[in-house]
Amino acid sequence: MKIAIVMGSDSDFPVVEKGLKILNDFSVEVDVRVISAHRTPFTALEFAKNAEENGYELIIGAAGKAAHLPGVLAGCTPLPVIGLPIKASELDGMDALLAIVQMPPGVPVATVAINSAENAALLAVQILSVKYPELRNKFKEYKEQMAQKVVEKDRKLNKKINNK
Amino acid sequence: MKIAIVMGSDSDFPVVEKGLKILNDFSVEVDVRVISAHRTPFTALEFAKNAEENGYELIIGAAGKAAHLPGVLAGCTPLPVIGLPIKASELDGMDALLAIVQMPPGVPVATVAINSAENAALLAVQILSVKYPELRNKFKEYKEQMAQKVVEKDRKLNKKINNK
Amino acid sequence: MKIAIVMGSDSDFPVVEKGLKILNDFSVEVDVRVISAHRTPFTALEFAKNAEENGYELIIGAAGKAAHLPGVLAGCTPLPVIGLPIKASELDGMDALLAIVQMPPGVPVATVAINSAENAALLAVQILSVKYPELRNKFKEYKEQMAQKVVEKDRKLNKKINNK
Amino acid sequence: MKIAIVMGSDSDFPVVEKGLKILNDFSVEVDVRVISAHRTPFTALEFAKNAEENGYELIIGAAGKAAHLPGVLAGCTPLPVIGLPIKASELDGMDALLAIVQMPPGVPVATVAINSAENAALLAVQILSVKYPELRNKFKEYKEQMAQKVVEKDRKLNKKINNK
Amino acid sequence: MKIAIVMGSDSDFPVVEKGLKILNDFSVEVDVRVISAHRTPFTALEFAKNAEENGYELIIGAAGKAAHLPGVLAGCTPLPVIGLPIKASELDGMDALLAIVQMPPGVPVATVAINSAENAALLAVQILSVKYPELRNKFKEYKEQMAQKVVEKDRKLNKKINNK
Amino acid sequence: MKIAIVMGSDSDFPVVEKGLKILNDFSVEVDVRVISAHRTPFTALEFAKNAEENGYELIIGAAGKAAHLPGVLAGCTPLPVIGLPIKASELDGMDALLAIVQMPPGVPVATVAINSAENAALLAVQILSVKYPELRNKFKEYKEQMAQKVVEKDRKLNKKINNK
Amino acid sequence: MKIAIVMGSDSDFPVVEKGLKILNDFSVEVDVRVISAHRTPFTALEFAKNAEENGYELIIGAAGKAAHLPGVLAGCTPLPVIGLPIKASELDGMDALLAIVQMPPGVPVATVAINSAENAALLAVQILSVKYPELRNKFKEYKEQMAQKVVEKDRKLNKKINNK
Amino acid sequence: MKIAIVMGSDSDFPVVEKGLKILNDFSVEVDVRVISAHRTPFTALEFAKNAEENGYELIIGAAGKAAHLPGVLAGCTPLPVIGLPIKASELDGMDALLAIVQMPPGVPVATVAINSAENAALLAVQILSVKYPELRNKFKEYKEQMAQKVVEKDRKLNKKINNK
Repeated sequence: MKIAIVMGSDSDFPVVEKGLKILNDFSVEVDVRVISAHRTPFTALEFAKNAEENGYELIIGAAGKAAHLPGVLAGCTPLPVIGLPIKASELDGMDALLAIVQMPPGVPVATVAINSAENAALLAVQILSVKYPELRNKFKEYKEQMAQKVVEKDRKLNKKINNK
Repeated sequence: MKIAIVMGSDSDFPVVEKGLKILNDFSVEVDVRVISAHRTPFTALEFAKNAEENGYELIIGAAGKAAHLPGVLAGCTPLPVIGLPIKASELDGMDALLAIVQMPPGVPVATVAINSAENAALLAVQILSVKYPELRNKFKEYKEQMAQKVVEKDRKLNKKINNK
Repeated sequence: MKIAIVMGSDSDFPVVEKGLKILNDFSVEVDVRVISAHRTPFTALEFAKNAEENGYELIIGAAGKAAHLPGVLAGCTPLPVIGLPIKASELDGMDALLAIVQMPPGVPVATVAINSAENAALLAVQILSVKYPELRNKFKEYKEQMAQKVVEKDRKLNKKINNK
Repeated sequence: MKIAIVMGSDSDFPVVEKGLKILNDFSVEVDVRVISAHRTPFTALEFAKNAEENGYELIIGAAGKAAHLPGVLAGCTPLPVIGLPIKASELDGMDALLAIVQMPPGVPVATVAINSAENAALLAVQILSVKYPELRNKFKEYKEQMAQKVVEKDRKLNKKINNK
Repeated sequence: MKIAIVMGSDSDFPVVEKGLKILNDFSVEVDVRVISAHRTPFTALEFAKNAEENGYELIIGAAGKAAHLPGVLAGCTPLPVIGLPIKASELDGMDALLAIVQMPPGVPVATVAINSAENAALLAVQILSVKYPELRNKFKEYKEQMAQKVVEKDRKLNKKINNK
Repeated sequence: MKIAIVMGSDSDFPVVEKGLKILNDFSVEVDVRVISAHRTPFTALEFAKNAEENGYELIIGAAGKAAHLPGVLAGCTPLPVIGLPIKASELDGMDALLAIVQMPPGVPVATVAINSAENAALLAVQILSVKYPELRNKFKEYKEQMAQKVVEKDRKLNKKINNK
Repeated sequence: MKIAIVMGSDSDFPVVEKGLKILNDFSVEVDVRVISAHRTPFTALEFAKNAEENGYELIIGAAGKAAHLPGVLAGCTPLPVIGLPIKASELDGMDALLAIVQMPPGVPVATVAINSAENAALLAVQILSVKYPELRNKFKEYKEQMAQKVVEKDRKLNKKINNK
Repeated sequence: MKIAIVMGSDSDFPVVEKGLKILNDFSVEVDVRVISAHRTPFTALEFAKNAEENGYELIIGAAGKAAHLPGVLAGCTPLPVIGLPIKASELDGMDALLAIVQMPPGVPVATVAINSAENAALLAVQILSVKYPELRNKFKEYKEQMAQKVVEKDRKLNKKINNK
């Protein structure tokens, strides 16, 4: 159960890191790579082309601005590719979002919210869970804990308001 | 190998149908449902809550305008949920895109391009392929055929241009 | 005369608080809840479904990003639901605004400006005033005071300019 | 139980009419007026100022482009004002939406989706229902019927798909 | 030769002040007023209605968010009205710009750039210059000085670059 | 009392024509020119530079896409320049609006709504009225007639509704 | 003097054709190719990698939606790459524009207006003219003719207006 | 081998400087000028008109807001003009981008990303390389070094992650 996170630039890592932590928590093996669709395009294509053979089951592609990386990877592999738009320009990440999600027919990229490395990681977990029942169970616990946290926050906030 | 496509309105079907055809071509069993997150919210939640137990391995949620359906389904199931934004208002589908992709941390929706039912279907195939090798092989053939069609179009266009 | 304010996250409270204060000033009883449409969806639906029976006359739903909470609540209650879009992402709250206001026919959400908890609160007062004459009178006084403040600011600014 | 619908231009009527029909179905008395915030501003202000005294319990303001009408009416009356943005320019109604919803603190306008006269009408019904129990009951039936229609469409679509 | 600057809120003054200074430099008599189209609507209309009689030759209206003030003033006076959109919300002033510039046929507002009080003031000078030749001459000198400053900056920058 | 309307392309004329008619109705002498800021830039500058001397009191510049014409004219003349953004591209005229209204400090362009040649013409009338009392009087009559038309439409619409 | 036009899809040809005609008029040798960055990515990279060696001096890349083609080509060749955004989705070509122009530092794409194949072609001519004086001369004539056409249109429009 | 960088304002220099450095590294002779399309329009036109004669082979035009400078220069010279949109207003540089890229047919501007002076410079190098083989070679080395840096960053990031 191994996936890859490919970033267009190491400056994306502070965002990506939050997702990496979640994947570690779920015991998903992750290889993290910096590969640019524009500066090292052949590396990008080769990586994607060989990804299945190299044992990856899914790729997360993170990129900002004219964010071509996830789409380019998706073109070269049958693996599901998750696209994580990074806010890296003056345009609030909208450029990256559109450049990732608006893929032409035939080559989908599973896009998550701008800068939401958590959701990229959790979507990876959900997709792998289709195959791995133990991951499904962990994810159900995670969902349960999220729900518990909301209940707890609800309780705390009401305590705070009522004590005023 | 069974998935569900849930639409917020039957008016979304002309778009959704293109994806349904692809899923049929890939021999993926599909249940198609019209369930509204706003008009039949309890049905929506119950459907999502029971989806895993009912044998679905993945859900595609299609909706327009303030497109809450995919996110609401994702909140109630550990299954991966693919979000298909439908152009159904004066705003070119941008409202649906943002309402689907910008999910808060913890509950991702795998979003595809506006009105791209083809990509929603193909993403479903790719996700299922993580588990089902035969689907992976079919998808590789599909990719190969897409590439062949581009080569063919390139040839035809050049013939047309040069014959002028 | 009791209403509920439901937030998708306790991180919305610093914005919501300004509205809470206004409602307190108008002696409207308010229950404040943190309930997530995505993390605790069944709680959200149950809350909305029972809201009328539990004596609420109106619900304010506050949420950011893919802000589904107000619309989801509106789907489960006949009570009027006010939607307060919270700026909580890279997109300046435009995602939340569209996800709240662009509701499909049949399930309206009374939307106010991004982050304008004051207006959500005052709209609640205006709606309740349809039934409660004493609230109408207080609101008229409030409007009168707002007008007086503008007059006062006009006077002060002119004094400042002329004394230069 | 009487409300007013005020339009900025009679060209807005084809959109507004769908809401008027709903209000008639709910037996809400409606006065329909064409009053321009820019061409007949004093009439607009006087109308709003006297609306409460003249027996209106709520005002729907519909306008396109730089849609000032709902906000201007809201400034002159303690009644709740519903804002209906009309697509009437080259900008898809986004200009009208922002000009209606982004009201400054103190003067809220309850905004609904672009061109959604149905939702403006139903929101009016919901607001009046705070006071009038019989309207609440009718609205609950309406919601129930909407849900039934979704169920019916779900059934029909499945029949159609399966018969293919 | 007297004009009025009307602001929707005294919080707009730090922006407006830059224009006021220019008008003072051109010896244009200016009355500055804080009048809200929403909080003191009758004052706004009366001000505009009497503006011509009170000796004003032009009005500058400055407002943010759902910026109705310039358009409302324009509806009540035959004087030219200049609209100055103020960035006062989460939306970068785009809401104010659209709410000011997209006026319906019949009631124009002469709109300048977001937060550009300088241009509002200079446009006022240009408009008054149609009548007052001495102002035209001063404006020509101003234009000449602007050009000289560009020439000077060009010279300085080149000196700086070449001395490196 | 003579003004110029300068268009960037003769394809703008169907929009511009509506303004021309209004100016004729107000007996404002108008010269209409097709001059491109990009294709005939020197003609554009010379025209603007000599406009005052040639007896023009104001210029209307109409252009679409990267609409530089009004700003370029404004740079070369002390006369007030009205900018009319034309919808001429895939972007709904938003490109033209921003390219016209967002002028840098020092060179304002009095911008009106996208495609609103009527408002460009009426703003011209209002500006000229600062100098010409007879035009002011005609404009007051025009405003009065607009108001009467609204009253008439209000009457007709009510008749139509009530007769149903 | 040979260039390549590469399209992502043969459906882009009706737009691209207008540029091809211009290039033919300038006697620039053009190879037209349909190569998809997503469906035939290795072909795209190989094409770009070998473009210089194969005698191309410049590449025009045309693509719609998540328009990665021009950027991907630019990553693999030292040749200048012109990007032509095609309107091919629900989003008016804004997705293609941002996906083409917002390239990261190091890999520029010379972007022209949405659907403006004419400008892509003329920019190609201008770039080649840096090397080929005869092309420079032809382009000067072209510019002169454009200017003449504007003068002619100006004359015709005035004749038409004055004859009314 | 000489080019010009023309800025609309010296406040653009901190952005432009990054491109200037690159051009120096490539030993491209650069003249830097501050010339405003609006404040010194005749200088702008004369500069562009004489640019070829004065030995420039290409012009980079940098401007913010209603960024007319690159387009105006392009109108007066047969040389290729690169447009660099500067973020200089409340609108994140989107106004400058549209005002530069959306040029009408006949007068292209080769537009790069908002604030990307690096890409403006590198595009200049690529264009000049069509003529100058030594520059082509340097650019190839530059591309190679960029690729090496990505490889190095990939190595470092992996070292950092694995050492945790």
